[in-house]
Amino acid sequence: MKLVLSETKLIKEPITIINDLVNEARFKIKKDSIEMIAMDPANVAMVVFRLLGSAFVEYSVKEDVSIGINLTDFKQVLRRVKANDNLMLELIDNKLKITLQGASVRTFFLPLIELDEKEQKVPELKFKATVRCPSGILNDAIEDVEIVAESVSFQAEDKKFIIAASGDSKKASVEIKPDEFISIKTEEKTKSKYSIEYLKKMIQASKISSNVEILFSKDYPLKLEYKEIDKIQMIFILAPRMEGD
Amino acid sequence: MKLVLSETKLIKEPITIINDLVNEARFKIKKDSIEMIAMDPANVAMVVFRLLGSAFVEYSVKEDVSIGINLTDFKQVLRRVKANDNLMLELIDNKLKITLQGASVRTFFLPLIELDEKEQKVPELKFKATVRCPSGILNDAIEDVEIVAESVSFQAEDKKFIIAASGDSKKASVEIKPDEFISIKTEEKTKSKYSIEYLKKMIQASKISSNVEILFSKDYPLKLEYKEIDKIQMIFILAPRMEGD
Amino acid sequence: MKLVLSETKLIKEPITIINDLVNEARFKIKKDSIEMIAMDPANVAMVVFRLLGSAFVEYSVKEDVSIGINLTDFKQVLRRVKANDNLMLELIDNKLKITLQGASVRTFFLPLIELDEKEQKVPELKFKATVRCPSGILNDAIEDVEIVAESVSFQAEDKKFIIAASGDSKKASVEIKPDEFISIKTEEKTKSKYSIEYLKKMIQASKISSNVEILFSKDYPLKLEYKEIDKIQMIFILAPRMEGD
Repeated sequence: MKLVLSETKLIKEPITIINDLVNEARFKIKKDSIEMIAMDPANVAMVVFRLLGSAFVEYSVKEDVSIGINLTDFKQVLRRVKANDNLMLELIDNKLKITLQGASVRTFFLPLIELDEKEQKVPELKFKATVRCPSGILNDAIEDVEIVAESVSFQAEDKKFIIAASGDSKKASVEIKPDEFISIKTEEKTKSKYSIEYLKKMIQASKISSNVEILFSKDYPLKLEYKEIDKIQMIFILAPRMEGD
Repeated sequence: MKLVLSETKLIKEPITIINDLVNEARFKIKKDSIEMIAMDPANVAMVVFRLLGSAFVEYSVKEDVSIGINLTDFKQVLRRVKANDNLMLELIDNKLKITLQGASVRTFFLPLIELDEKEQKVPELKFKATVRCPSGILNDAIEDVEIVAESVSFQAEDKKFIIAASGDSKKASVEIKPDEFISIKTEEKTKSKYSIEYLKKMIQASKISSNVEILFSKDYPLKLEYKEIDKIQMIFILAPRMEGD
Repeated sequence: MKLVLSETKLIKEPITIINDLVNEARFKIKKDSIEMIAMDPANVAMVVFRLLGSAFVEYSVKEDVSIGINLTDFKQVLRRVKANDNLMLELIDNKLKITLQGASVRTFFLPLIELDEKEQKVPELKFKATVRCPSGILNDAIEDVEIVAESVSFQAEDKKFIIAASGDSKKASVEIKPDEFISIKTEEKTKSKYSIEYLKKMIQASKISSNVEILFSKDYPLKLEYKEIDKIQMIFILAPRMEGD
């Protein structure tokens, strides 16, 4: 295989974000895309990452291959990418070879690792509420309510999406209304609670997409989807917090 | 009551500065101004804060009220203020309601707290020496002499104001002379020592006023006053350090 | 003596860099230059610093003098230098007087200290390989390979200079080729290993010179030289790491 990426942030940002949730991951390098599905060690959050072959300058994969990588190591190499570098990925001698080509040529070899963990599958989920909005709006709202508590409630109703938190007799809430950039659809008034700690890691994906789709149901997992057509997709699934958590 | 502030730094910066000295404080919300007087837990420093009604876009207070607030909580809310937000303060259900209005509307509720501490009064003080200067000059001088010691001497004499420190056979001094921006008045050669740790917290008030008035006498408290006409006033009073401290 | 320096970074940056290697040092103030030679406490690295009289606005030394200075203290004073300040050095009452002259005049006195340590001499060394390159290229390469190990190998051969590291089945390497800005000369294929921790401190000298000369031989000390003609010179000598280190 030989993969050459010019828009290097499409791999640099996701690996940094995924590494906040898991330390090692299995990447499936297929003929048309790279795919990774991982569950965090506490079994609370799942992250799905797809980077399409069409995002690459050169994408040549002869047969599907599955490789385990230590993400902390991978992230450290990716931090060394400079603005105008091209990034090349190859498999050589059972190692991942990463070449950064700019003013100079730098090569890194990372060992492939065995992953005991069984292969993850994305669960089939159906949601009552769907909100689409600029990803910055979700980021701001999470950071606003973070002040008062460790969990946040997402509440969708007719023409209103409310992100709120309360604790120690403090309360915070952000009200988001539909406009040309924001759509809010819900079958019924829907409310559910999620961990702010996890959400803060996931919303970093605003770096790869200026929009986010937020899907949830009452006391049911949350799904956040960030994507750029023909390039990249990151999906996060987060277990709900029950009342009293 | 309903108070709407557009120039939000007039409350954001002072609360951050006051919180460096005390953790909780009582605010008197009067018909023409908000006032707070607090003593630090070590009884070494007093801070007085007045924010005039005329600084607000809307200032409506029906009757004077006195409320206790946890400043760390308040500061965290104020950190969420964005550049173009308006900030609204109300009292609702025995809570302080803070509304930030910008692209979105965010509301925060903070509990009012009971303060055992008796009401503070600003002591009447008379000073021999008075220096007025750009607040940045005082900041620089404190940071210059901080290198060599934990306490600093302020010394005023005819046409000269000297900020100096010494310790461990190291010495540092800054000499400030009167000019069109700096005035130095003293009845006699006057020298007194103060804690640099406290001063460093107080000089943060340079963020609300580009000038400071420095008043002191020999082995007597120091008074620093920062103000903007018709808007805001912050006064700090700091106990002296005796020789040998 | 009275020394006045306008290009203050010529003393500010070197003192910060030297202080990363040693805590106290002896400066010889001679009629034409200031010179300092110091060995780090672990006897692994030597640093030589020369600041020429011609770099100063005023350089007046009546007789050679040797003074011991605590570099942490000196560095803290130098941090207070502002962009347009002049810096004046004098010896008064067995102290080093440092005057910073800008909008205000600030004076600092630091004690001279006794140094037990015997006077250091720069060893005579002969090298097989010599590389000259922009100092930023060496910095980047060291930071690239730092990811995978604690020591780095420098390898010069015909028309190629390779900086590489390996450890824990990870590898990194940077290949540098001669061009109009880079010259690589070696008598034979030459390779040697050095500590990255020390190198990272030394390459900070890129702040005083945009070029560096790199000299080494197999299992032999490394010499890095940074200089600006008629102004300043910093030389670092670093003991090799043996294979297996």
